[in-house]
Amino acid sequence: MGESVIRPGERVDDLQRDGLKIIQDPERFCFGIDAVLLSDFARAKEGDKVLDLGTGTGIIPILMSAKTRAGHYTALEIQSESVEIARRSVSLNSLEDKIEIVEGDIKEAPDILPKSYYNVVTSNPPYMIDMHGLKNEADCKSIARHEVLCNLEDVVNAAAKALVPGGCFYMIHRPFRLSEILVMLTKYKLEPKRIRFIHPYVDKEPSMVLIESKRGARSGVVIEKPLIIYERPGQYTEECVRIYGATGP
Amino acid sequence: MGESVIRPGERVDDLQRDGLKIIQDPERFCFGIDAVLLSDFARAKEGDKVLDLGTGTGIIPILMSAKTRAGHYTALEIQSESVEIARRSVSLNSLEDKIEIVEGDIKEAPDILPKSYYNVVTSNPPYMIDMHGLKNEADCKSIARHEVLCNLEDVVNAAAKALVPGGCFYMIHRPFRLSEILVMLTKYKLEPKRIRFIHPYVDKEPSMVLIESKRGARSGVVIEKPLIIYERPGQYTEECVRIYGATGP
Repeated sequence: MGESVIRPGERVDDLQRDGLKIIQDPERFCFGIDAVLLSDFARAKEGDKVLDLGTGTGIIPILMSAKTRAGHYTALEIQSESVEIARRSVSLNSLEDKIEIVEGDIKEAPDILPKSYYNVVTSNPPYMIDMHGLKNEADCKSIARHEVLCNLEDVVNAAAKALVPGGCFYMIHRPFRLSEILVMLTKYKLEPKRIRFIHPYVDKEPSMVLIESKRGARSGVVIEKPLIIYERPGQYTEECVRIYGATGP
Repeated sequence: MGESVIRPGERVDDLQRDGLKIIQDPERFCFGIDAVLLSDFARAKEGDKVLDLGTGTGIIPILMSAKTRAGHYTALEIQSESVEIARRSVSLNSLEDKIEIVEGDIKEAPDILPKSYYNVVTSNPPYMIDMHGLKNEADCKSIARHEVLCNLEDVVNAAAKALVPGGCFYMIHRPFRLSEILVMLTKYKLEPKRIRFIHPYVDKEPSMVLIESKRGARSGVVIEKPLIIYERPGQYTEECVRIYGATGP
Protein backbone atom coordinates (compact mmCIF):
# COMPACT_ATOMS: atom_id res chain seq x y z
CA MET A 1 0.00 0.00 0.00
CA GLY A 2 1.09 3.66 -0.33
CA GLU A 3 3.99 4.94 -2.39
CA SER A 4 5.48 1.53 -2.98
CA VAL A 5 2.73 0.47 -5.42
CA ILE A 6 3.41 3.38 -7.77
CA ARG A 7 5.92 2.86 -10.61
CA PRO A 8 8.01 5.53 -12.38
CA GLY A 9 5.97 7.54 -14.88
CA GLU A 10 2.70 6.73 -13.13
CA ARG A 11 0.56 9.09 -11.12
CA VAL A 12 -2.18 8.66 -8.52
CA ASP A 13 -5.38 10.62 -9.05
CA ASP A 14 -7.93 11.34 -6.35
CA LEU A 15 -11.38 10.35 -7.66
CA GLN A 16 -13.11 12.94 -5.42
CA ARG A 17 -15.38 10.30 -4.01
CA ASP A 18 -15.07 8.35 -0.75
CA GLY A 19 -11.30 8.91 -0.85
CA LEU A 20 -10.93 6.60 -3.86
CA LYS A 21 -7.75 6.84 -5.88
CA ILE A 22 -6.60 5.48 -9.20
CA ILE A 23 -3.18 4.75 -10.65
CA GLN A 24 -2.66 5.94 -14.21
CA ASP A 25 0.23 6.09 -16.65
CA PRO A 26 -0.25 9.16 -18.88
CA GLU A 27 2.03 7.51 -21.49
CA ARG A 28 -0.50 4.72 -21.74
CA PHE A 29 -4.12 5.72 -21.26
CA CYS A 30 -5.95 7.90 -18.77
CA PHE A 31 -9.66 7.47 -18.16
CA GLY A 32 -11.91 10.15 -19.57
CA ILE A 33 -15.21 11.77 -18.72
CA ASP A 34 -16.94 8.90 -20.56
CA ALA A 35 -15.98 6.40 -17.85
CA VAL A 36 -17.20 8.77 -15.14
CA LEU A 37 -20.53 9.35 -16.91
CA LEU A 38 -21.06 5.64 -17.54
CA SER A 39 -20.40 4.75 -13.91
CA ASP A 40 -23.10 7.27 -12.95
CA PHE A 41 -25.59 6.12 -15.60
CA ALA A 42 -25.29 2.42 -14.72
CA ARG A 43 -27.59 1.10 -12.02
CA ALA A 44 -26.83 -1.83 -9.75
CA LYS A 45 -28.87 -3.14 -6.87
CA GLU A 46 -27.66 -4.41 -3.53
CA GLY A 47 -25.78 -7.65 -3.94
CA ASP A 48 -25.68 -7.50 -7.77
CA LYS A 49 -22.87 -9.21 -9.65
CA VAL A 50 -21.36 -6.72 -12.09
CA LEU A 51 -19.06 -7.36 -15.07
CA ASP A 52 -17.03 -4.63 -16.80
CA LEU A 53 -15.85 -5.52 -20.30
CA GLY A 54 -12.52 -3.91 -21.27
CA THR A 55 -11.89 -2.24 -17.93
CA GLY A 56 -8.54 -0.55 -18.70
CA THR A 57 -7.41 1.06 -15.44
CA GLY A 58 -10.43 -0.43 -13.62
CA ILE A 59 -12.02 3.01 -13.33
CA ILE A 60 -15.63 1.89 -13.83
CA PRO A 61 -15.82 -0.79 -11.11
CA ILE A 62 -13.79 1.42 -8.76
CA LEU A 63 -16.21 4.34 -9.19
CA MET A 64 -19.28 2.07 -9.10
CA SER A 65 -18.08 0.52 -5.86
CA ALA A 66 -18.68 3.93 -4.26
CA LYS A 67 -21.87 4.78 -6.17
CA THR A 68 -23.84 1.52 -5.85
CA ARG A 69 -24.35 -1.30 -3.36
CA ALA A 70 -23.49 -4.06 -5.85
CA GLY A 71 -22.02 -7.17 -4.26
CA HIS A 72 -19.09 -7.96 -6.52
CA TYR A 73 -17.34 -6.68 -9.64
CA THR A 74 -15.49 -8.71 -12.25
CA ALA A 75 -13.46 -6.63 -14.68
CA LEU A 76 -12.05 -8.09 -17.89
CA GLU A 77 -9.02 -6.56 -19.61
CA ILE A 78 -6.87 -7.92 -22.43
CA GLN A 79 -3.68 -5.86 -22.01
CA SER A 80 -1.46 -7.33 -19.27
CA GLU A 81 0.08 -3.96 -18.40
CA SER A 82 -3.39 -2.51 -17.79
CA VAL A 83 -4.41 -5.58 -15.78
CA GLU A 84 -1.38 -5.09 -13.59
CA ILE A 85 -2.01 -1.37 -13.01
CA ALA A 86 -5.74 -1.98 -12.38
CA ARG A 87 -4.89 -4.64 -9.77
CA ARG A 88 -2.61 -2.20 -7.97
CA SER A 89 -5.41 0.42 -7.96
CA VAL A 90 -7.83 -2.13 -6.50
CA SER A 91 -5.29 -2.92 -3.83
CA LEU A 92 -4.54 0.77 -3.16
CA ASN A 93 -8.25 1.22 -2.40
CA SER A 94 -8.45 -2.02 -0.36
CA LEU A 95 -11.13 -3.30 -2.72
CA GLU A 96 -9.65 -6.78 -3.28
CA ASP A 97 -12.75 -8.45 -1.81
CA LYS A 98 -15.06 -6.45 -4.04
CA ILE A 99 -13.29 -6.16 -7.41
CA GLU A 100 -11.53 -8.91 -9.34
CA ILE A 101 -9.47 -7.94 -12.40
CA VAL A 102 -9.38 -10.82 -14.91
CA GLU A 103 -6.92 -10.88 -17.80
CA GLY A 104 -8.62 -11.99 -20.98
CA ASP A 105 -10.10 -11.26 -24.38
CA ILE A 106 -13.68 -9.96 -24.74
CA LYS A 107 -14.06 -12.29 -27.74
CA GLU A 108 -13.41 -15.23 -25.41
CA ALA A 109 -15.45 -13.87 -22.50
CA PRO A 110 -18.26 -16.44 -22.96
CA ASP A 111 -15.65 -19.20 -22.46
CA ILE A 112 -13.65 -17.56 -19.65
CA LEU A 113 -16.54 -16.23 -17.57
CA PRO A 114 -19.77 -17.79 -16.31
CA LYS A 115 -22.77 -17.43 -18.63
CA SER A 116 -26.22 -16.06 -17.61
CA TYR A 117 -24.63 -15.06 -14.33
CA TYR A 118 -24.16 -11.28 -14.06
CA ASN A 119 -26.98 -8.89 -13.14
CA VAL A 120 -25.21 -5.93 -14.71
CA VAL A 121 -22.64 -5.58 -17.49
CA THR A 122 -20.86 -2.30 -18.24
CA SER A 123 -18.57 -1.36 -21.10
CA ASN A 124 -16.75 1.70 -22.41
CA PRO A 125 -15.62 -0.02 -25.60
CA PRO A 126 -13.43 1.27 -28.44
CA TYR A 127 -15.52 3.82 -30.35
CA MET A 128 -13.87 3.94 -33.73
CA ILE A 129 -14.42 1.42 -36.49
CA ASP A 130 -11.18 -0.40 -37.20
CA MET A 131 -9.41 0.76 -40.31
CA HIS A 132 -7.15 -1.44 -42.35
CA GLY A 133 -3.50 -0.62 -41.77
CA LEU A 134 -3.94 0.59 -38.23
CA LYS A 135 -3.24 -2.89 -36.89
CA ASN A 136 0.48 -2.73 -37.56
CA GLU A 137 0.93 0.24 -35.32
CA ALA A 138 -1.53 -0.92 -32.69
CA ASP A 139 -0.50 0.40 -29.28
CA CYS A 140 -2.35 0.53 -26.00
CA LYS A 141 -4.06 3.82 -26.86
CA SER A 142 -5.32 2.71 -30.24
CA ILE A 143 -6.52 -0.59 -28.73
CA ALA A 144 -8.61 1.40 -26.29
CA ARG A 145 -9.97 3.74 -28.96
CA HIS A 146 -10.20 1.69 -32.15
CA GLU A 147 -11.79 -1.67 -32.77
CA VAL A 148 -8.41 -3.34 -33.23
CA LEU A 149 -8.87 -6.29 -30.89
CA CYS A 150 -12.65 -6.42 -30.61
CA ASN A 151 -15.58 -4.85 -32.40
CA LEU A 152 -19.08 -3.80 -31.38
CA GLU A 153 -20.53 -7.23 -32.06
CA ASP A 154 -17.91 -8.94 -29.84
CA VAL A 155 -18.80 -6.64 -26.94
CA VAL A 156 -22.57 -7.04 -27.38
CA ASN A 157 -22.26 -10.81 -27.77
CA ALA A 158 -20.14 -11.05 -24.59
CA ALA A 159 -22.65 -8.90 -22.65
CA ALA A 160 -25.64 -10.91 -23.91
CA LYS A 161 -24.04 -14.21 -22.89
CA ALA A 162 -22.89 -12.96 -19.49
CA LEU A 163 -26.18 -11.43 -18.34
CA VAL A 164 -28.97 -13.20 -16.49
CA PRO A 165 -32.40 -12.83 -18.18
CA GLY A 166 -33.64 -9.37 -17.22
CA GLY A 167 -30.08 -8.21 -16.51
CA CYS A 168 -28.94 -4.83 -17.84
CA PHE A 169 -26.09 -3.82 -20.12
CA TYR A 170 -24.77 -0.26 -19.86
CA MET A 171 -22.61 1.15 -22.61
CA ILE A 172 -21.26 4.55 -23.63
CA HIS A 173 -20.50 5.14 -27.28
CA ARG A 174 -20.46 7.69 -30.09
CA PRO A 175 -23.79 8.96 -31.47
CA PHE A 176 -22.82 8.42 -35.12
CA ARG A 177 -22.98 4.68 -34.43
CA LEU A 178 -26.37 4.78 -32.67
CA SER A 179 -28.34 3.02 -35.34
CA GLU A 180 -25.77 0.24 -35.72
CA ILE A 181 -25.68 -0.16 -31.93
CA LEU A 182 -29.46 -0.42 -31.52
CA VAL A 183 -29.68 -2.92 -34.37
CA MET A 184 -26.87 -4.99 -32.82
CA LEU A 185 -28.36 -4.92 -29.31
CA THR A 186 -31.74 -5.98 -30.68
CA LYS A 187 -30.12 -8.81 -32.65
CA TYR A 188 -28.67 -10.18 -29.39
CA LYS A 189 -32.01 -9.74 -27.52
CA LEU A 190 -30.64 -6.88 -25.45
CA GLU A 191 -33.59 -4.53 -25.81
CA PRO A 192 -32.66 -0.82 -25.58
CA LYS A 193 -34.59 0.66 -22.63
CA ARG A 194 -32.93 4.00 -21.79
CA ILE A 195 -30.82 6.35 -23.86
CA ARG A 196 -29.18 9.60 -22.82
CA PHE A 197 -27.27 11.88 -25.13
CA ILE A 198 -24.34 13.89 -23.80
CA HIS A 199 -23.91 17.36 -25.28
CA PRO A 200 -20.87 19.58 -24.64
CA TYR A 201 -23.24 22.57 -24.65
CA VAL A 202 -27.04 22.78 -24.69
CA ASP A 203 -27.11 24.03 -28.29
CA LYS A 204 -24.58 21.54 -29.69
CA GLU A 205 -24.84 18.07 -31.19
CA PRO A 206 -24.23 15.26 -28.71
CA SER A 207 -20.67 13.94 -28.52
CA MET A 208 -21.48 10.74 -26.61
CA VAL A 209 -24.47 8.53 -25.87
CA LEU A 210 -25.31 6.35 -22.88
CA ILE A 211 -27.42 3.26 -23.56
CA GLU A 212 -29.13 0.86 -21.14
CA SER A 213 -30.41 -2.37 -22.65
CA LYS A 214 -32.12 -5.28 -20.94
CA ARG A 215 -31.82 -8.94 -21.79
CA GLY A 216 -35.12 -10.32 -23.10
CA ALA A 217 -37.18 -7.18 -22.42
CA ARG A 218 -40.06 -5.93 -24.55
CA SER A 219 -39.57 -3.12 -27.05
CA GLY A 220 -39.87 0.48 -25.85
CA VAL A 221 -37.17 2.98 -24.92
CA VAL A 222 -37.02 6.16 -22.86
CA ILE A 223 -34.90 8.97 -24.30
CA GLU A 224 -33.87 10.96 -21.25
CA LYS A 225 -33.36 14.70 -21.07
CA PRO A 226 -30.00 15.78 -22.52
CA LEU A 227 -26.95 15.62 -20.28
CA ILE A 228 -25.11 18.90 -20.77
CA ILE A 229 -21.43 19.07 -19.78
CA TYR A 230 -20.65 22.79 -19.79
CA GLU A 231 -22.68 25.77 -18.64
CA ARG A 232 -20.03 27.93 -20.35
CA PRO A 233 -16.36 27.32 -21.22
CA GLY A 234 -14.51 25.99 -18.19
CA GLN A 235 -17.69 25.82 -16.08
CA TYR A 236 -19.40 22.46 -15.61
CA THR A 237 -23.18 22.29 -15.28
CA GLU A 238 -24.57 21.49 -11.85
CA GLU A 239 -25.35 17.95 -12.94
CA CYS A 240 -21.78 17.35 -14.10
CA VAL A 241 -20.41 18.71 -10.85
CA ARG A 242 -22.66 16.24 -9.00
CA ILE A 243 -21.53 13.34 -11.21
CA TYR A 244 -17.87 14.20 -10.75
CA GLY A 245 -18.43 14.48 -7.02
CA ALA A 246 -16.13 17.50 -6.92
CA THR A 247 -18.35 19.24 -4.40
CA GLY A 248 -18.73 16.05 -2.34
CA PRO A 249 -18.35 15.85 1.44
CA MET B 1 -62.79 28.85 -55.00
CA GLY B 2 -63.48 30.84 -51.83
CA GLU B 3 -66.36 30.25 -49.43
CA SER B 4 -68.12 27.77 -51.67
CA VAL B 5 -65.50 25.04 -51.12
CA ILE B 6 -66.00 25.08 -47.35
CA ARG B 7 -68.61 22.74 -45.87
CA PRO B 8 -70.54 23.20 -42.61
CA GLY B 9 -68.40 22.41 -39.53
CA GLU B 10 -65.16 23.02 -41.40
CA ARG B 11 -62.81 25.91 -40.93
CA VAL B 12 -60.06 27.48 -43.03
CA ASP B 13 -56.72 28.09 -41.29
CA ASP B 14 -54.07 30.48 -42.57
CA LEU B 15 -50.73 28.63 -42.62
CA GLN B 16 -48.77 31.88 -42.12
CA ARG B 17 -46.65 31.13 -45.14
CA ASP B 18 -47.03 32.44 -48.69
CA GLY B 19 -50.73 32.97 -48.06
CA LEU B 20 -51.35 29.21 -47.90
CA LYS B 21 -54.56 27.99 -46.32
CA ILE B 22 -55.88 24.63 -45.20
CA ILE B 23 -59.39 23.30 -44.71
CA GLN B 24 -59.92 21.32 -41.52
CA ASP B 25 -62.84 19.74 -39.75
CA PRO B 26 -62.21 19.90 -35.99
CA GLU B 27 -64.67 17.03 -35.52
CA ARG B 28 -62.36 14.89 -37.62
CA PHE B 29 -58.66 15.64 -37.27
CA CYS B 30 -56.60 18.83 -37.24
CA PHE B 31 -52.93 18.78 -38.09
CA GLY B 32 -50.52 19.25 -35.22
CA ILE B 33 -47.08 20.70 -34.64
CA ASP B 34 -45.61 17.36 -35.76
CA ALA B 35 -46.68 17.95 -39.38
CA VAL B 36 -45.22 21.44 -39.30
CA LEU B 37 -41.91 20.21 -37.86
CA LEU B 38 -41.67 17.34 -40.35
CA SER B 39 -42.30 19.65 -43.31
CA ASP B 40 -39.39 21.78 -42.09
CA PHE B 41 -37.05 18.85 -41.38
CA ALA B 42 -37.60 17.22 -44.78
CA ARG B 43 -35.34 18.31 -47.62
CA ALA B 44 -36.26 18.26 -51.29
CA LYS B 45 -34.21 19.53 -54.21
CA GLU B 46 -35.45 21.41 -57.26
CA GLY B 47 -37.58 19.16 -59.43
CA ASP B 48 -37.76 16.30 -56.88
CA LYS B 49 -40.72 13.97 -56.91
CA VAL B 50 -42.12 13.74 -53.37
CA LEU B 51 -44.53 11.20 -51.88
CA ASP B 52 -46.41 11.70 -48.60
CA LEU B 53 -47.75 8.51 -47.02
CA GLY B 54 -50.99 9.01 -45.04
CA THR B 55 -51.39 12.69 -45.83
CA GLY B 56 -54.63 13.37 -43.91
CA THR B 57 -55.55 16.98 -44.68
CA GLY B 58 -52.62 17.26 -47.11
CA ILE B 59 -50.78 19.54 -44.70
CA ILE B 60 -47.26 18.22 -45.39
CA PRO B 61 -47.19 18.62 -49.18
CA ILE B 62 -49.01 21.96 -48.90
CA LEU B 63 -46.38 23.30 -46.46
CA MET B 64 -43.48 21.74 -48.39
CA SER B 65 -44.72 23.34 -51.60
CA ALA B 66 -43.82 26.69 -50.00
CA LYS B 67 -40.62 25.54 -48.26
CA THR B 68 -38.90 23.60 -51.06
CA ARG B 69 -38.53 23.70 -54.84
CA ALA B 70 -39.64 20.10 -55.36
CA GLY B 71 -41.29 19.48 -58.71
CA HIS B 72 -44.32 17.41 -57.78
CA TYR B 73 -46.06 15.93 -54.75
CA THR B 74 -48.12 12.77 -54.58
CA ALA B 75 -50.06 12.32 -51.35
CA LEU B 76 -51.66 9.02 -50.39
CA GLU B 77 -54.63 8.85 -48.01
CA ILE B 78 -56.92 5.95 -47.18
CA GLN B 79 -59.95 7.79 -45.75
CA SER B 80 -62.18 9.13 -48.52
CA GLU B 81 -63.48 12.03 -46.43
CA SER B 82 -59.89 13.18 -45.80
CA VAL B 83 -59.03 12.74 -49.49
CA GLU B 84 -61.97 14.92 -50.39
CA ILE B 85 -61.04 17.68 -47.90
CA ALA B 86 -57.37 17.55 -48.93
CA ARG B 87 -58.33 17.93 -52.60
CA ARG B 88 -60.39 21.02 -51.78
CA SER B 89 -57.41 22.50 -49.86
CA VAL B 90 -55.14 21.86 -52.85
CA SER B 91 -57.66 23.59 -55.05
CA LEU B 92 -58.13 26.48 -52.60
CA ASN B 93 -54.36 27.11 -52.88
CA SER B 94 -54.36 26.62 -56.68
CA LEU B 95 -51.83 23.82 -56.28
CA GLU B 96 -53.58 21.29 -58.55
CA ASP B 97 -50.55 21.17 -60.89
CA LYS B 98 -48.17 20.56 -58.01
CA ILE B 99 -50.01 18.25 -55.58
CA GLU B 100 -52.01 15.14 -56.42
CA ILE B 101 -54.07 13.52 -53.66
CA VAL B 102 -54.44 9.77 -54.28
CA GLU B 103 -56.98 7.66 -52.40
CA GLY B 104 -55.43 4.40 -51.32
CA ASP B 105 -54.00 2.13 -48.66
CA ILE B 106 -50.34 2.43 -47.56
CA LYS B 107 -50.22 -1.38 -47.47
CA GLU B 108 -51.03 -1.38 -51.19
CA ALA B 109 -48.80 1.59 -52.07
CA PRO B 110 -46.21 -0.59 -53.88
CA ASP B 111 -49.01 -1.76 -56.22
CA ILE B 112 -50.80 1.56 -56.64
CA LEU B 113 -47.77 3.83 -57.06
CA PRO B 114 -44.62 3.59 -59.20
CA LYS B 115 -41.67 1.84 -57.56
CA SER B 116 -38.10 3.25 -57.28
CA TYR B 117 -39.53 6.52 -58.52
CA TYR B 118 -39.71 9.16 -55.75
CA ASN B 119 -36.70 11.19 -54.60
CA VAL B 120 -38.29 11.96 -51.25
CA VAL B 121 -40.90 10.21 -49.11
CA THR B 122 -42.45 11.81 -46.04
CA SER B 123 -44.75 10.34 -43.41
CA ASN B 124 -46.37 11.38 -40.16
CA PRO B 125 -47.73 7.92 -39.40
CA PRO B 126 -49.90 6.69 -36.53
CA TYR B 127 -47.67 6.67 -33.44
CA MET B 128 -49.41 4.25 -31.16
CA ILE B 129 -49.13 0.49 -31.39
CA ASP B 130 -52.49 -1.02 -32.23
CA MET B 131 -54.28 -2.57 -29.31
CA HIS B 132 -56.74 -5.39 -29.62
CA GLY B 133 -60.29 -4.16 -29.21
CA LEU B 134 -59.68 -0.69 -30.50
CA LYS B 135 -60.62 -1.77 -34.00
CA ASN B 136 -64.33 -1.92 -33.24
CA GLU B 137 -64.45 1.71 -32.36
CA ALA B 138 -62.05 2.83 -35.04
CA ASP B 139 -62.88 6.35 -36.17
CA CYS B 140 -60.92 8.84 -38.24
CA LYS B 141 -59.01 10.15 -35.22
CA SER B 142 -57.93 6.75 -33.98
CA ILE B 143 -56.94 5.75 -37.53
CA ALA B 144 -54.64 8.76 -37.63
CA ARG B 145 -53.18 8.09 -34.19
CA HIS B 146 -53.18 4.31 -33.76
CA GLU B 147 -51.87 1.60 -36.02
CA VAL B 148 -55.36 0.40 -36.88
CA LEU B 149 -55.07 0.32 -40.67
CA CYS B 150 -51.30 0.20 -41.09
CA ASN B 151 -48.31 -0.39 -38.85
CA LEU B 152 -44.73 0.83 -38.81
CA GLU B 153 -43.53 -1.95 -41.07
CA ASP B 154 -46.20 -1.15 -43.69
CA VAL B 155 -45.06 2.49 -43.80
CA VAL B 156 -41.35 1.64 -43.97
CA ASN B 157 -41.94 -1.01 -46.62
CA ALA B 158 -43.98 1.43 -48.74
CA ALA B 159 -41.28 4.11 -48.41
CA ALA B 160 -38.47 1.69 -49.29
CA LYS B 161 -40.28 0.48 -52.42
CA ALA B 162 -41.25 3.98 -53.57
CA LEU B 163 -37.81 5.62 -53.24
CA VAL B 164 -35.10 5.74 -55.89
CA PRO B 165 -31.71 4.45 -54.66
CA GLY B 166 -30.19 7.27 -52.62
CA GLY B 167 -33.62 8.81 -52.06
CA CYS B 168 -34.56 9.98 -48.55
CA PHE B 169 -37.40 9.05 -46.23
CA TYR B 170 -38.46 11.58 -43.58
CA MET B 171 -40.59 10.50 -40.67
CA ILE B 172 -41.72 11.95 -37.35
CA HIS B 173 -42.53 9.54 -34.55
CA ARG B 174 -42.47 8.99 -30.82
CA PRO B 175 -39.11 8.50 -29.08
CA PHE B 176 -40.25 5.39 -27.16
CA ARG B 177 -40.32 3.55 -30.50
CA LEU B 178 -36.88 4.76 -31.63
CA SER B 179 -35.11 1.44 -31.36
CA GLU B 180 -37.88 -0.43 -33.18
CA ILE B 181 -37.88 2.25 -35.89
CA LEU B 182 -34.12 2.15 -36.49
CA VAL B 183 -34.17 -1.65 -36.63
CA MET B 184 -37.07 -1.56 -39.11
CA LEU B 185 -35.47 1.10 -41.34
CA THR B 186 -32.22 -0.87 -41.41
CA LYS B 187 -34.10 -4.06 -42.28
CA TYR B 188 -35.54 -2.30 -45.35
CA LYS B 189 -32.12 -0.80 -46.33
CA LEU B 190 -33.23 2.69 -45.37
CA GLU B 191 -30.13 3.68 -43.44
CA PRO B 192 -30.79 6.26 -40.69
CA LYS B 193 -28.66 9.34 -41.48
CA ARG B 194 -30.04 12.21 -39.38
CA ILE B 195 -32.04 12.25 -36.16
CA ARG B 196 -33.41 15.20 -34.27
CA PHE B 197 -35.22 14.99 -30.95
CA ILE B 198 -37.95 17.49 -30.14
CA HIS B 199 -38.17 18.56 -26.50
CA PRO B 200 -41.02 20.67 -25.08
CA TYR B 201 -38.43 22.40 -22.87
CA VAL B 202 -34.64 22.22 -22.82
CA ASP B 203 -34.57 20.23 -19.57
CA LYS B 204 -37.33 17.75 -20.51
CA GLU B 205 -37.40 14.40 -22.24
CA PRO B 206 -38.12 14.57 -25.97
CA SER B 207 -41.76 14.13 -26.97
CA MET B 208 -41.12 13.53 -30.68
CA VAL B 209 -38.29 12.51 -32.97
CA LEU B 210 -37.51 13.39 -36.60
CA ILE B 211 -35.66 10.77 -38.62
CA GLU B 212 -34.05 11.01 -42.06
CA SER B 213 -33.04 7.71 -43.66
CA LYS B 214 -31.51 7.10 -47.06
CA ARG B 215 -32.09 4.13 -49.34
CA GLY B 216 -28.93 2.04 -49.69
CA ALA B 217 -26.64 4.40 -47.77
CA ARG B 218 -23.74 3.35 -45.56
CA SER B 219 -24.09 3.20 -41.78
CA GLY B 220 -23.49 6.37 -39.76
CA VAL B 221 -25.98 8.84 -38.32
CA VAL B 222 -25.84 12.45 -37.15
CA ILE B 223 -27.79 13.26 -34.00
CA GLU B 224 -28.58 16.95 -34.37
CA LYS B 225 -28.82 19.48 -31.57
CA PRO B 226 -32.12 19.28 -29.70
CA LEU B 227 -35.12 21.12 -31.14
CA ILE B 228 -36.73 22.94 -28.23
CA ILE B 229 -40.35 24.06 -28.56
CA TYR B 230 -40.86 26.46 -25.67
CA GLU B 231 -38.58 29.10 -24.18
CA ARG B 232 -41.10 29.31 -21.33
CA PRO B 233 -44.83 28.51 -21.08
CA GLY B 234 -46.69 30.14 -23.98
CA GLN B 235 -43.49 31.46 -25.57
CA TYR B 236 -42.01 29.57 -28.52
CA THR B 237 -38.24 29.45 -29.00
CA GLU B 238 -36.81 31.50 -31.86
CA GLU B 239 -36.32 28.36 -33.93
CA CYS B 240 -39.97 27.35 -33.52
CA VAL B 241 -41.14 30.82 -34.49
CA ARG B 242 -39.02 30.52 -37.64
CA ILE B 243 -40.43 27.06 -38.44
CA TYR B 244 -44.00 28.21 -37.94
CA GLY B 245 -43.31 31.22 -40.10
CA ALA B 246 -45.44 33.31 -37.74
CA THR B 247 -43.11 36.26 -38.10
CA GLY B 248 -42.91 35.83 -41.87
CA PRO B 249 -43.76 38.48 -44.46
